Amino acid sequence: MVGPGTRQRPATTSTKGSCARIGAMTPPLAGLHVVECASFVAGPTGGMTLAQLGADVIRIDPLGGGPDHERWPVAASGSSYYWSSLNKGKRSVAVDMRADEGRELVLALVTAPGADRGVLVDNVVGRRWMSYDALAARRPDLIHLRVQGHADGRPAVDYTVNAEVGLPGITGPEEGGAPVNHVLPAWDLITGLSVSTGVLAALHDRNRTGRGARIELALADVALAGVANLGWLSEAAERGSERPRHGNHVYGSFGVDFACRDGERVMVVALTEGQWAALCAVTGTREVFDALEVALDADLTRESDRYRLRETIAAILRPWFLARDFPQVREELDAARVLWGSYRGMTDVVAAHRRGTHPVLADVALPGGGQAITARSPLRWNGEHGEPGRAPQLGRDTARVLAEVLGLSDAEIGRLAGAGVIGAGDRA
Amino acid sequence: MVGPGTRQRPATTSTKGSCARIGAMTPPLAGLHVVECASFVAGPTGGMTLAQLGADVIRIDPLGGGPDHERWPVAASGSSYYWSSLNKGKRSVAVDMRADEGRELVLALVTAPGADRGVLVDNVVGRRWMSYDALAARRPDLIHLRVQGHADGRPAVDYTVNAEVGLPGITGPEEGGAPVNHVLPAWDLITGLSVSTGVLAALHDRNRTGRGARIELALADVALAGVANLGWLSEAAERGSERPRHGNHVYGSFGVDFACRDGERVMVVALTEGQWAALCAVTGTREVFDALEVALDADLTRESDRYRLRETIAAILRPWFLARDFPQVREELDAARVLWGSYRGMTDVVAAHRRGTHPVLADVALPGGGQAITARSPLRWNGEHGEPGRAPQLGRDTARVLAEVLGLSDAEIGRLAGAGVIGAGDRA
Repeated sequence: MVGPGTRQRPATTSTKGSCARIGAMTPPLAGLHVVECASFVAGPTGGMTLAQLGADVIRIDPLGGGPDHERWPVAASGSSYYWSSLNKGKRSVAVDMRADEGRELVLALVTAPGADRGVLVDNVVGRRWMSYDALAARRPDLIHLRVQGHADGRPAVDYTVNAEVGLPGITGPEEGGAPVNHVLPAWDLITGLSVSTGVLAALHDRNRTGRGARIELALADVALAGVANLGWLSEAAERGSERPRHGNHVYGSFGVDFACRDGERVMVVALTEGQWAALCAVTGTREVFDALEVALDADLTRESDRYRLRETIAAILRPWFLARDFPQVREELDAARVLWGSYRGMTDVVAAHRRGTHPVLADVALPGGGQAITARSPLRWNGEHGEPGRAPQLGRDTARVLAEVLGLSDAEIGRLAGAGVIGAGDRA
Repeated sequence: MVGPGTRQRPATTSTKGSCARIGAMTPPLAGLHVVECASFVAGPTGGMTLAQLGADVIRIDPLGGGPDHERWPVAASGSSYYWSSLNKGKRSVAVDMRADEGRELVLALVTAPGADRGVLVDNVVGRRWMSYDALAARRPDLIHLRVQGHADGRPAVDYTVNAEVGLPGITGPEEGGAPVNHVLPAWDLITGLSVSTGVLAALHDRNRTGRGARIELALADVALAGVANLGWLSEAAERGSERPRHGNHVYGSFGVDFACRDGERVMVVALTEGQWAALCAVTGTREVFDALEVALDADLTRESDRYRLRETIAAILRPWFLARDFPQVREELDAARVLWGSYRGMTDVVAAHRRGTHPVLADVALPGGGQAITARSPLRWNGEHGEPGRAPQLGRDTARVLAEVLGLSDAEIGRLAGAGVIGAGDRA
């Protein structure tokens, strides 16, 4: 039994060993402690975000790891690039949650006293012993944010909710063709940043009022809100039918990809009047479009008319790109201040990273050997991204965290390891 | 000149008229005031998120609106569903920022005193008078979060950064075909939630230390970090070539779409051993896969083997779906607790909303007439999404905000309106 009686030191708000700096600055969330019991993308992304801002995020996994511990992509050394990257900068605690003593350790870590503790992010389904009510009975001002699939408890993942909100049916070139799934788990990532937002909003409130918070966040709701907030459901309701597929055209504006003479492709966008003027100027098509406006009764300085005539505009511009190799296209577009981007492969991104052109990216050593390319926080404070955070190793910090947060003695930690409640090799 | 000399009342932390409730609860950010000078998706999404959590978000636009004021989709009444939805719950102030007096009003609103003021979100390019240094000279503890395209100041939008991180090249079915852009501005939305996270982290810090914050956030960095954090750049570096296109298969696991007899499609996913067992059970393929494991030396309880054999698994399962209409598929998959979702169109989502099945969605009246379908916050506090927030009307709150925050008199506000510095029709 782990409880007040076994505590030898009071819980502290120490940040030792856990708080990286951002440049010369103490990070904004230094001193905050968060417990994370979450798998896959959304919850861990939320925890990682808080860790990169300076919070001490204690991730608790079952012995042997959760269902995401070996997810692809996996390095030749056997480490999951995925798990290592989404959990970097956190401390890892591994506990047998089927054992009563293990469960008690988890409850004690979550509800440990201290104004900068008592924050839990999870995506737990079913475990009644970890319900908000059970936890709040021990610490009434707990902030508990639970990530769900559907709000009613039914499971869902990014790829199922994306299908359910209608995006695959309007993706890709083929009118009437099969749906095209996105490859980026976009809703997971948006949910992850909603987790960090929700936790910090609740903390702001608790610091002023003393109130805790019971917060739930369903992936399916994030996706519904996402398409609704862009106005797309309103449009479908007014139109009464699905938006036609647009291929690579940007909806509601002018933007599309062009192939260069050497086969490279560029994405060119003209949202504003200035961007449109730059594009006309560099391609020498000003007079063509002036005449077209007269012929078609259009005003191409208006985004809506550029959208309506997108195929015509693209057809007029296409030969300019096909007459030039990519390096020349790049030079001319940049000189004219056109808004554009190149289609790169991920190997191209890696090569650019090797040349040092992407300060947001960083190499971190994996505990099992080898290196991973991972990211610092995209938020820059006084120009600095801060450190990416150390790659985690399952259970590495168990003993240290139990001593530091719960005040357990070396003897007690040894007994728990011997009993298999925590990993035997976890001693710090 | 608007300055201390013209203030008749001190700035207050009043929340009158701006703070909705979440169920019976005062929302967590009640009392916080944020100024937003941002267009398009990312910045406004950040502000909307803070507003839905209870902050008074004062959006400042140029007279006549910013470049996004009439963006598609647009209602028959002329209102932009897009602008209305992304800016709901905010107060709208319209000011002539080409006029010195207008600029001074903006600076005064951003740097007004009060512990719950002095927070600015923008995506401004170029305006030197709105630089961090100019603002911090007036209020050293200012929290300023600036959204950028690229970190070096070059412009970028969702569709250009998405091309630059390599996703269109691995989207869709066609090996070697043209890139397929996503239609969701996913990076914009992720950046928007990063804005709310960054602001709240800085506020947490300022409340403890008194420090302000200069934060920058580039869309391009968000995209690079997104793919890096999933381990995909590490994989590309190790592989030395691009990941092959997968069509609708989920990367690294088993998940793909199936057509039913009636042409409806479902997305079926088996990430975990339990989900895989459920899928085998309902389709009656347990023995087939047992035999296949022997024949191919595979262990299909392992995610990596399900991924490797995804085409084979899909081919074995496909006839089961083709032999059943969608209603029967739905019933059987649900009964077996398979993880799946249906491919819906947005008109289907609208129909479901009309039946009241999506509490996160809400109808709001547009100022120009008509209604929009928009969203409440997906974060549920004690089970409640809270109100979506009122649709904005450009400049509607100008007079009230100037009186409340800067203490301007009716006479002074009348003079500014007469001089065209603020909209003449804006008087509250």
